[in-house]
Amino acid sequence: MKLYTSHRAPNPRRVRWVMAEKGIEDVDLIEIDIMAGEHRTPEYRARVGVSHLPALELDDGTAISESLAICRYLEALNPEPNLFGRDAREQAFVEMWTRRCEFYLANPIMFSVRHSHPALAALEATQLPQVAEYNRLTAERFMKTLDRRLADNPFIAGDRFTIADIVAVVGLDFARLVKYRPPEELTHLARWLAETRDRPAAKAGV
Amino acid sequence: MKLYTSHRAPNPRRVRWVMAEKGIEDVDLIEIDIMAGEHRTPEYRARVGVSHLPALELDDGTAISESLAICRYLEALNPEPNLFGRDAREQAFVEMWTRRCEFYLANPIMFSVRHSHPALAALEATQLPQVAEYNRLTAERFMKTLDRRLADNPFIAGDRFTIADIVAVVGLDFARLVKYRPPEELTHLARWLAETRDRPAAKAGV
Repeated sequence: MKLYTSHRAPNPRRVRWVMAEKGIEDVDLIEIDIMAGEHRTPEYRARVGVSHLPALELDDGTAISESLAICRYLEALNPEPNLFGRDAREQAFVEMWTRRCEFYLANPIMFSVRHSHPALAALEATQLPQVAEYNRLTAERFMKTLDRRLADNPFIAGDRFTIADIVAVVGLDFARLVKYRPPEELTHLARWLAETRDRPAAKAGV
Repeated sequence: MKLYTSHRAPNPRRVRWVMAEKGIEDVDLIEIDIMAGEHRTPEYRARVGVSHLPALELDDGTAISESLAICRYLEALNPEPNLFGRDAREQAFVEMWTRRCEFYLANPIMFSVRHSHPALAALEATQLPQVAEYNRLTAERFMKTLDRRLADNPFIAGDRFTIADIVAVVGLDFARLVKYRPPEELTHLARWLAETRDRPAAKAGV
C-alpha cells in the first residue's frame, strides 16, 4: 500500500502517528508538495479521485481518502495496540471524543492557522484575521473542556491512549506554526500534552 | 435508552432515520426545544455533559453525543440491515463517503441555512449573507461530485444504501427550510434524491 502524505499537514500526520503506534512498516510514504499544488494535478486526481490528503492507495489501485477512515482501516489490519475501542460501548465513547477533538479543536486550529500564517495565504482565497480569531476562541473553549476532562482521566477518552489523543495533539502541534501555546492556567491539558509529545510515535509522526 | 432529539434539527434526524431503517423501537425519544435553549440548561448539561444534540442516554445514565458515534453504536446493537459496511474494506469506503457528505455537503448546508433563515438568527451571533453564499457554493461543488458518482452507482457508497446516503439526504432536506433545490442539471443526484426520499424511513425520520 502507498500513503500519499505531506510533511507538515496535520491530517496526514494523524495517519503516520497511527502507523508509528502500531509499528506498521509495509506502507510506502509518497510525499506530495501541497504548497506547489501537487494534490491538484490531474495525475493525483486520477489516482485518488479527489484533491485531498492523506490518501491510502490499496494494492489493487483503489484509494481511500479521509484520515479517520484510513486510520480505522489500518486498525482493522493491525489490531494492536487498540486505538478505536475494544467493544461497541468503548468504540462509541472513543468516536465521540475523537469527533469532539476534530470539530471543536483540530478544525478550528487549522482555520485559525490558515487565516493567520503569512506562508499559508496561498491556500486561502482571502486571509481574514476575524476568521483566525473566531476559530482560536472556539478552540480555546474546547481546551477548557479538555482540561476539566484531563483532571480526572489520564487520556482524553479515559484510561488509555486512543485515536482521540492523536487527533487532539496533532491539532495543537499544528498551532506551533504560528507560535501558539494553550493558556497556561490549563495545567491538566499541559500535563497530558507534555506526556503525549513525549511518546516515541510523536517523533515518527512529524 | 433515551434519545435527546429535536424535531427539525438535521443531526438528530440522522439517528432517527437509522432507527427507522433498523426498526429500533426500544429507544425513548425526548424532545428538546433548541429554539427555547433547552439544550443549554444546567439540567441538560448535567445529563449529557455538553450542550449538543442528539445524545443517547444509556440505561446506566451515561450519555453518548455526536450523531455518527450514536448511529454506529446502534448498528453494533442492531446489525441488520447493515449501514456501515460488512468488512474492513467496505467500512473504509462507507466512512470515506460519509465524511465527505458531512464535511462538503451537510455542514456547509447547515451553515448556509443558519446564516440565511430569518427564524434561525437567534442561533447565530451575527448572520452573514457572505457566509451563507460561500457555504452554498461549497455544497454545490460537492453536489457535482455526487452527481458524477451517482451516474454509475445506485447509492453514494456503491451498490447499496448506507449511512452515507442518510447523511447526504438529511443535509439536502434541511436546505428545504430556505426553499433550496439542487441545480436541475444534476439529474443523477435528482434520481437518487427522489428514490431516497421515497424510503419508508424518510417519513419516520422527520
